[in-house]
Amino acid sequence: MAGNGTIAIIGGTGKLGAAIARRLAKAGRTVVIGSRSAESASAKATELGFGLTGMSNADAAQAGDVVIVTVPFDAQDATLADIRPHVAGKLVVDTTVPLVPPKVMRVQMPAEGSAAVRTQKALGEGVRIASAFHSVAGHKLITDRDIECDVLVFGDDKADRQIVVELADAMGLRGVHGGALVNSAAAEALTSVLIFINKTYQVDGAGIRITGDLIPPAA
Amino acid sequence: MAGNGTIAIIGGTGKLGAAIARRLAKAGRTVVIGSRSAESASAKATELGFGLTGMSNADAAQAGDVVIVTVPFDAQDATLADIRPHVAGKLVVDTTVPLVPPKVMRVQMPAEGSAAVRTQKALGEGVRIASAFHSVAGHKLITDRDIECDVLVFGDDKADRQIVVELADAMGLRGVHGGALVNSAAAEALTSVLIFINKTYQVDGAGIRITGDLIPPAA
Repeated sequence: MAGNGTIAIIGGTGKLGAAIARRLAKAGRTVVIGSRSAESASAKATELGFGLTGMSNADAAQAGDVVIVTVPFDAQDATLADIRPHVAGKLVVDTTVPLVPPKVMRVQMPAEGSAAVRTQKALGEGVRIASAFHSVAGHKLITDRDIECDVLVFGDDKADRQIVVELADAMGLRGVHGGALVNSAAAEALTSVLIFINKTYQVDGAGIRITGDLIPPAA
Repeated sequence: MAGNGTIAIIGGTGKLGAAIARRLAKAGRTVVIGSRSAESASAKATELGFGLTGMSNADAAQAGDVVIVTVPFDAQDATLADIRPHVAGKLVVDTTVPLVPPKVMRVQMPAEGSAAVRTQKALGEGVRIASAFHSVAGHKLITDRDIECDVLVFGDDKADRQIVVELADAMGLRGVHGGALVNSAAAEALTSVLIFINKTYQVDGAGIRITGDLIPPAA
């Protein structure tokens, strides 16, 4: 069992979830994927390979030491209710972007300020929350190609952020500490901007890079 | 008179304002800088050179065809009240980042959702609003060196955004259309993240690049 124990991907049959699962499993991590339907999750795990196994979201949350939630914004509430009994004391990494169709190119933040803070409120203070992977295009991440995109990682605990930074690095991306969980608003909002840029500039999945010479902090 | 007529920089004695004024004047644009004190503005204009002239913020707003507002968040209300009588029908480019000291590394968005939307409300619907230049480090922009930073430009009118994109390009940066004015929240929030990254990774002015092959839209 490498690194951070078992990593559970909630919503792992979706585009982003499957891509994260595949990259982490390929990097040698122990990964399980969850879905509302255990059968769908199993089928997707078999399709993805790399030793992945599929199960219900609740079972995946139970199995995971780190739990990455990759469901659309409108499925957030129901999904968090499903996993809540199984994540006490664990690190939950929220990837939710508060897109509100049909105007997905328009920033529309929730009343809580960000989806990540909304997740913290839904799961309660006994759960450690980080957020990341907002700006990565799932259809690129599912491939083996190099992706020119940094992953901003937010969370109130530096050690928890560092776990996620290392997961991003293991996936061939660059994880960058972005500060407190409330700062997640920046990356979440940026996703609508990137969708606008994709359309306006005919880009196949625009991303971001932080420029400047970053010297990683001591652990 | 090149390009977009006279460009007025409100708060042009500040770090960001002076840097924008200098780069645009150096690029051959007609630029005036305003300050609360006309004397300070004149002195700064002389110091910066490149044919810049200084005056009060109100006079600069009156002289400008495009009016760029570069004042700190806590000076926004007073400054907008000063220039409001002089900007009807003009394009006002807001650069305000809603930093709330002492916690400037923490995203704290205003109730309106963004400083740019706040500016739109303060100046009224008769004024064209765009926002840009949130993520550029003034102390780097004031020099002649190349800066690795894109400038996201927001506004509800494409032609107005294009004017600002071209100003960014003229300054040696890359302007990128970022969509509706409400999307300004993304770049404004990102500034707190970049300040956090500067501190955490010992960076001298982190910026952002949009990755992917951007094909500029037809005018």
